[in-house]
Amino acid sequence: MAKKDDVQLLGSWASPYSNRVQIALNLKSVEYEFIEENFYSKKSDRLLKANPVHKKVPVLIHDEKPICESLVIIQYVDDVWTDHGPSILPSDPYDRAMARIWAEYIDEKWFPLFKKELEKTRDETREAIIGKIIEGVALLEAAFVECSKGREFFGGDNVGYVDVVLGSYLGWIKVMEVMMFHVKLFDEIRVPGLARWAERFVSHEAAKDVVPAAQKLVQFYMMVETAKASTS
Amino acid sequence: MAKKDDVQLLGSWASPYSNRVQIALNLKSVEYEFIEENFYSKKSDRLLKANPVHKKVPVLIHDEKPICESLVIIQYVDDVWTDHGPSILPSDPYDRAMARIWAEYIDEKWFPLFKKELEKTRDETREAIIGKIIEGVALLEAAFVECSKGREFFGGDNVGYVDVVLGSYLGWIKVMEVMMFHVKLFDEIRVPGLARWAERFVSHEAAKDVVPAAQKLVQFYMMVETAKASTS
Repeated sequence: MAKKDDVQLLGSWASPYSNRVQIALNLKSVEYEFIEENFYSKKSDRLLKANPVHKKVPVLIHDEKPICESLVIIQYVDDVWTDHGPSILPSDPYDRAMARIWAEYIDEKWFPLFKKELEKTRDETREAIIGKIIEGVALLEAAFVECSKGREFFGGDNVGYVDVVLGSYLGWIKVMEVMMFHVKLFDEIRVPGLARWAERFVSHEAAKDVVPAAQKLVQFYMMVETAKASTS
Repeated sequence: MAKKDDVQLLGSWASPYSNRVQIALNLKSVEYEFIEENFYSKKSDRLLKANPVHKKVPVLIHDEKPICESLVIIQYVDDVWTDHGPSILPSDPYDRAMARIWAEYIDEKWFPLFKKELEKTRDETREAIIGKIIEGVALLEAAFVECSKGREFFGGDNVGYVDVVLGSYLGWIKVMEVMMFHVKLFDEIRVPGLARWAERFVSHEAAKDVVPAAQKLVQFYMMVETAKASTS
């Protein structure tokens, strides 16, 4: 196990991108110091120094060297701590390529639909956006069947790359279901594989203390919106 | 060497994203069949079947299994043909993370500035966009110094991941310099490392017959614009 002071994570408890790095470190049983970046004040000097190009959390600092971008960090964690438990990326090159493609689909195509709804851009109706999100859920169910090969996780018997990427959004997805959509996205009838996967994921040892409860995220969202409204 | 009929690439000679896969296959001395996707007619059934989600070239078909997204394909090529020459991604985990971060910067932040100019969105003046592109070039010069460690390529002694990603744009960059910007971006005075790197890259064995000449790309661009104008 790495010494505690070797690894620091600049992050935010409410950020799925920070959460996925926390989960990856947990999967590898790596001890780390979590340094919460305050959302309400200006960006810390520590963050600006560690990530001058993107200026965003998460940043992993390992042996004083900063690494940014959550997907890059997860792959780094997998590459460095190879002997700390099962690998996060699949070992077969084709399975690994598929995992990367699905992770990219989730991050670049599917989850941005939620943000579109949140940002209240009204080029499309709420119904049209929800329709696209639900189409995406069906695609992800097919991906689950393909990647899991009948086992528990996208990664097979163990939580893997696509599990971490999609699973880190589960708290915010729940918030959107309750507050915005009034429809259960990972529904047991339509997408039984994903529905059961989501339950398994949030109760997994590596994720259960990381993925925030919807209730806590709602409070956080309200505070951020209130702060925005009072300054605009 | 892989048998010729094992590997097919659906691509376009004018697409930097196809070009980078061609270069990666050349680096690994993998023989492949290049199947040109016609830009002027509707997308081929073969492409739609191989890449139903994104519907875009390049798609690598290896042993009848399709893989899409150029960066994913390059990593796949590196993972499968490990014994075909030097690895494309660096072997050190930190260097590998840095290569991924720079590749993402080039694809997601820097090169989109060129498209912004081409698409004639006028939220920003041409001068402001060119200013940002030139700032990016300075950042890439710093990245070159850091990654190359005084050697010839971003990948050190060999063409590597960042070389392939940035190098695949060199034809289009030349087009933009001549037609739009009237300024040399990879200038020997401002960015001597990058200027010499660009010359080395386009004359490298794996790239020299792949990166298209600016003249040919200009003709192509004119034809596409003419076709667009006649149908709009």
